[in-house]
This record gives sequence, C-alpha cells and structure tokens, in this order.
Amino acid sequence: MAAIAEATRTFADLTFEEKLDRMALVAVKVGLNLREGQELLITASLDHVAFVRRVVEQAYKAGASIVTVMYADDDATLSRYKYAPDASFDAVPKWLTEGIAEAYRSGAARMGITGANPSLLKDQDPTKVSRVNVAMSRASKPAMELVTRHTINWTIVAAATPAWAKLMFPNVPENEAVARQWDAIFHASRITGADPVQDWKDHGANIARRVAILNDKRFHSLHFRGPGTDLVVGLADDHLWAGGGGVCGNGIFCNANIPTEECFTTPHKDRVNGTVTASKPLSHQGTLIENISVRFENGKIVEANATAGEEALRKLIKVDEGASHLGEVALVPHGSPIAQSGLLYWNTLFDENAASHIALGQAYATCIKDGETLDEETLNAKGANTSLIHVDWMIGSGEMNVDGVHADGTEEPLMRSGEWV
Amino acid sequence: MAAIAEATRTFADLTFEEKLDRMALVAVKVGLNLREGQELLITASLDHVAFVRRVVEQAYKAGASIVTVMYADDDATLSRYKYAPDASFDAVPKWLTEGIAEAYRSGAARMGITGANPSLLKDQDPTKVSRVNVAMSRASKPAMELVTRHTINWTIVAAATPAWAKLMFPNVPENEAVARQWDAIFHASRITGADPVQDWKDHGANIARRVAILNDKRFHSLHFRGPGTDLVVGLADDHLWAGGGGVCGNGIFCNANIPTEECFTTPHKDRVNGTVTASKPLSHQGTLIENISVRFENGKIVEANATAGEEALRKLIKVDEGASHLGEVALVPHGSPIAQSGLLYWNTLFDENAASHIALGQAYATCIKDGETLDEETLNAKGANTSLIHVDWMIGSGEMNVDGVHADGTEEPLMRSGEWV
Ligand SMILES: [Zn+2]
Ligand SMILES: [Zn+2]
Ligand SMILES: [Zn+2]
Ligand SMILES: [Zn+2]
Repeated sequence: MAAIAEATRTFADLTFEEKLDRMALVAVKVGLNLREGQELLITASLDHVAFVRRVVEQAYKAGASIVTVMYADDDATLSRYKYAPDASFDAVPKWLTEGIAEAYRSGAARMGITGANPSLLKDQDPTKVSRVNVAMSRASKPAMELVTRHTINWTIVAAATPAWAKLMFPNVPENEAVARQWDAIFHASRITGADPVQDWKDHGANIARRVAILNDKRFHSLHFRGPGTDLVVGLADDHLWAGGGGVCGNGIFCNANIPTEECFTTPHKDRVNGTVTASKPLSHQGTLIENISVRFENGKIVEANATAGEEALRKLIKVDEGASHLGEVALVPHGSPIAQSGLLYWNTLFDENAASHIALGQAYATCIKDGETLDEETLNAKGANTSLIHVDWMIGSGEMNVDGVHADGTEEPLMRSGEWV
Repeated sequence: MAAIAEATRTFADLTFEEKLDRMALVAVKVGLNLREGQELLITASLDHVAFVRRVVEQAYKAGASIVTVMYADDDATLSRYKYAPDASFDAVPKWLTEGIAEAYRSGAARMGITGANPSLLKDQDPTKVSRVNVAMSRASKPAMELVTRHTINWTIVAAATPAWAKLMFPNVPENEAVARQWDAIFHASRITGADPVQDWKDHGANIARRVAILNDKRFHSLHFRGPGTDLVVGLADDHLWAGGGGVCGNGIFCNANIPTEECFTTPHKDRVNGTVTASKPLSHQGTLIENISVRFENGKIVEANATAGEEALRKLIKVDEGASHLGEVALVPHGSPIAQSGLLYWNTLFDENAASHIALGQAYATCIKDGETLDEETLNAKGANTSLIHVDWMIGSGEMNVDGVHADGTEEPLMRSGEWV
C-alpha cells in the first residue's frame, strides 16, 4: 500500500482571483486581526472594487458585524478642483469626519487601501491642494488620533490601480502593468508562501527580536558606511526602537502596515554628522529628486546636492528649522522582498520598507520612552525633532555597513553588506 | 443680408455622454435646486459611477461646497447575507445613520439614485432581510424624518443598471437593454425637450394648477369607470390634494421625485364601494400579481382575484386590518410620457406615475389639512387609513373615465378616456 501524496499548489499555481482572495485574507487576519462581531470601515478607491469585494467577504467570514466601504473617486476629486467655488477648498464634511471618529470610538476597525493615482493633483493649484489638506487634517484629527495612538486595530494594505501601475511600469501596456504591479504587491506583502498567516507570525517575531536587541543595546549613535556615505547618526536620549505589529488600546494585536520591514527609532536632532548619499530617487509631491547627497554638521544639513530636482530638495529643507534635521532613522535588511525586487514603488508604504532610511522632519513621540506623555519642549531636549514635514529617503543598499556606537566610542557591527550580522 | 439660422440640435442628436450630462443637470437644477455653497450627499449603486460623475460635476458647477457619494455594492450585500454572523442582521452602522442626520441638520441636500437590482435579495432568508430593514429604518428615522417632512431639499432620480434593465427588457442583449432603459428614463424624466429646466417649470405649473382646482372642488368622492371597473372612492374629510414640487423647510423649492406626474390625496377608508380591475401587473416583493380584480364594500376588500400571484395578493391584504382598505388615490393622465411608453418599469418611482392608481394601506398625513399635527385617532376619524403596508397599484388607462362626485350626489367629469377634461 502506497501513501497518497497530496499535490501541493504553490502560489504561482493559484488563479488571480485566488491570489486576490489570499491578499484579502492576510489583510483581514494579519493586518487587522479582526475580532468576531467587530464593525469594519474600509476606505478605498473606485479602482479597487474587485479587491474590496474579496476583503468584504473575508471580513464577514471572520465574523464582522457590518462592513462599510467609503469609496474615493479621482474623477470626482478633479471635478471639485475644476468647478467648485473657492470656499469649497476650506470646507469639510464634518458630519463624516466626526462620524468616522465615532465609528472608531464605538469599536470599529479600520482598513485603508492605498494605491490611488500618486500624481492625480499634479496640475492643480498647489494652494488649493494645501487648503484641502489642512482643512481635512484638522477635521480628521479626532479620528486620526485614535489611529496613530493605536487605540483601535487598523491596517493599510495596497491594491493595484492603472494610474499607479503606469508609474511603476511605464513601458508596458496598461493591463500588463497592472498585472505586474499586483505581482509586486503580492511578493512585497509576504503572501506567497504556503501559509502566509504563519509566515507573518514568524516575520513579526523576527522584527520583534531585532527591536528587543536594539533596545537592550542603548546605542549612543549609528555609524553608516557605504558608497558616498560616512554618516554618524546620534540617537535621542531615551530613544525606543519600534517595528512590526503591536497590541492596540482595544487589546487586539494588529499589523498596521502590510508590508512592514523596518526597525526604526528617533535620532538626536543635533548629533548627526557626515555625508550621506541616497540609494534611491525620492518622489516628493510629484517631483523626482535623484542622487541626493547631503552633508550634516551638528544635526543640520549644511550642503545639499542632487542631479535632478535639486531646487525641490533645497525648498524642502527650508520649510522650517526642523526640515533640515532628522526625525527618524530606520534599519531594513537588503534581503527584504521589497529591496530584492529592485522596484521603485512610488508609494511610501513600500519604498520606506525597501532600504535603511532616514527622514527629515518630525520625530515620532512613540519612539521616546513615555514620549506620549511629554510636552514638545521636553521631547526636544531629549533630541526629538519638530517640523511640519516628515519625508523618508532611502540610504541603504547591499553595500551598506552599519555599526552601533556606544557612549564610550566603541563600535559594534550591526549590518554588513546590507544584512544583519 | 440673410439672417443666419443657428442649427438646433435635438435630443436625438446628442451623444450618450451629453444625454447623461443633461440628466445630471436636471437632477441638480430641477430635482434639488441646489443652492450655492450647499453641501450634497448622494447615495448610489456602484453600477451608477458614470452617471454619478456627471452629477458631481453639475453639482460643483452649481456651486456645491462638497459632494460626498456613498456607494452601495450588491456584491458586498450578498456577502453579508452569505457569510456574516447571525447578530449582523440586527446591527447598523449607527455612526453613519447619525452622521447622515447630522449632514441634513447642518444644511446638506440629498440625492438618492435609484435603479439597483430589484430582485437582489430574492433568494435570501426573508427573516434576515426583514431584520436588516427593521434595524436600518429604526436607525435612519432621525435622518428620514428630515427628508419625509421636507425639512431639506432632496430628490430621487433613476439611473440604468444591467440587472434592472434585464427585468425591463428580458429579450435583448444586456448592453442593448441598458441603452433602451436609459432611453426610457430620459423620456420619462422629461429631459428630451430643447429646454428641460423650463419644461419642468411648465410641467410643475400644470400639476400645481390641477392640485389647486381639485382642492377648490372639495369633492365628496371620485367615480372611476372603465373596463372591469365601476368604483366609487370616497375622499377623507379635510383631504388635501398634492403633487409636483414644493418649498422645503429650508426655503428651497425642490422636486423630490423625477419623474412625477400624479395628483394624489387621501381616500376615506370606509367609503369605497364597487369593483376595480388593475390596468397593469403589480410587482410585489419579487412576485408578479397579474389581472387583479377586487370588490370593495364600505371601504373593505371583500373579494380579491388575480390570474397569477393570487395567493400573494390575499396574503398582502391580510397583513393587518388597514391592508384591505385604501390609503391613497392618485390621478395621472394617460398622455404622460411614462403611460405613453407602455413599459413596466418594475420601480415605483416610474410605475406609480404611469397611470391613475390606488394604494392599499397607510395614508399620508400630509394629505389631510394640518394632518401632521393630528394624532392617529383623529386622522382615522377623518377617514385616513393606518397600516404597516403602502402598496400602489395601477387602475388607469386610455379607457378610464373619472368623475368628481359632490356631497349632493351631482357628478362632474374630471377625466375622459384617461385625459383631463
Ligand atoms: Zn520609516
Ligand atoms: Zn518615516
Ligand atoms: Zn401615488
Ligand atoms: Zn403611493
């Protein structure tokens, strides 16, 4: 008698519908970890309908009580910019922003599906764009605080759209670009293994172990060395490393970003010295800034060059005093699926997980011990930066070495050729 | 010198896009009469995206401050019925129903776009369907009251969908069915003239003149005579005729239904006598009831027959005591565009405007003088009916004669061969 071997279907064997379904399952089970009986609010683009339907089904299968989807429509947004009266650009649907905060307060989980056209507003009046953003952020503050403070379980996942795919794959027909983009999303989101839910548990445990080690070390600085880079980034007093999923205020463990690869913390705004060269172009508000190279002295950028978009870079670091200082430093191994793809995603959710990076501007209070209870002055005194901007740019690569520097000056290797030692 | 005659393009000359755009213009200008700076909330189906985009553009052109669209998705609704836990069917997104009420209170106008699949839920557990309906109506009551009492300007318009079109035109391919349905909607909605906004003003003035005449007459009853029909419908004490547009609580004149053709009032629930034969099939909760013929004695149906769906008819009139009495009587001329189309629309917005009709069940308090301030007992004493149901069915045709009967028994011709005399 011979044992009957069950044929195992690999990810490549799945139909596209089955792949979408698996992505939806991971979004609901891993991203949200949706609790039975929990309500769910989804924001998505009209280009995401097919994927949203898979998510809704998975959410109800997981026991959702009610799933509500709010669709944004690029066409409607452009109509507003073209035809609405001037006062429209300071107006917000307060009943909706307040309603969403109330949804979270009454127990709803939140899924944001990203992937709308990244350059939708490139030809619109920047003053109007910024008025809309300011009005919306102000009105959305009560809801956003429940999200950024992780009071509720939430997640952001990506879904392909024609406009975004054409940016990523400009030289192929639209349907092929969309298909390739989905493939890139599937791989980056770590759903291609035999058991993606377990894979995410393992991945999260790896990140958590790294975070624990880094927090134990209490490094004084990090020392980055690579092509065009010799940079010492001081770490803020009482800095905390973070990364991966976490337990929310409602007691649910969620993964707020799919994918996520980084371990990140707060640098000391006045203790950064040396030269750093970006390893990837930076897409900022529709402009591509290429081959950035800057020099820091005592935390401040004193020299900034780029082979393209140099004007935009120089404008950016002059937005306010904090814009020329660092607010984040993050370590990402070069072996991560996003780095290995070699693709530029034009979307922070992916690109900031493609390589070790630094961010100009605002620091995360959550990356300082008890930071959420401290006022701005106290945070600043510990080295945490303040700014209106927070712009990540990639400095890591397969040629980057990183050392942890102790207060006594001794160095300890952290990464060699882009990988954890 | 010869005058240059400007070529006039008729409706038939317009592209489909231009026709949609005109429909959207009429919805915004005639239906809502949207005020500059007013916010707008639209509910629609995902099948309506192309039309919604035209409406959003017209709304911003008319000065809307912000337009928010809430899309319903048939696929998501079916997922809920298939997979959601039992408790879901009594749950509602209260943050949303309360948010919508708040939108109306803070000045938003409302547009409902109808045309979703009329038989979407035909295979679902009727108990679950009714639990969802009860929970939603209860939670939506504060918002709905602002609508039904005309506190705000609102309108319902129709847009074609494949599922609905296949019901109306079952024997042609889907795309042809949708094209024909759009054509039927355009004609019924009176947007095919050279100046549809003016046409609607004229149409509204005609209905208002009829309503004024009927209210002046203070008829005691109406006497319907036609093939299979000899019916005297007593009118309630202090009955009021209504029809067409009106001024809302916010001071804006709006047309709440596009199309609208009827002049309607409240019959006396105990003074209906004789026999009436329906002129069109009645589609009720998925069942088609054909060739209805009933006999009334002192307001109550004492005999009810149909060649198809007779069981459903008999069940319907036994829902409660009021279900076998009349709650509405409406006059619609046979020359109205909907009647002339000869089509069954499977949608009350159209079908109740296709022919003179009566409705079993609940009466409108607004069709009794000061009715909104009176309690149920007082309304009943005037002859206004009470019931859980309100089901309209068509009795008018090109062969129907209607007389107004005065208290002294003298009769006065109102309609001959279906037309106003
Ligand atoms: Zn980061
Ligand atoms: Zn960042
Ligand atoms: Zn009616
Ligand atoms: Zn009715």
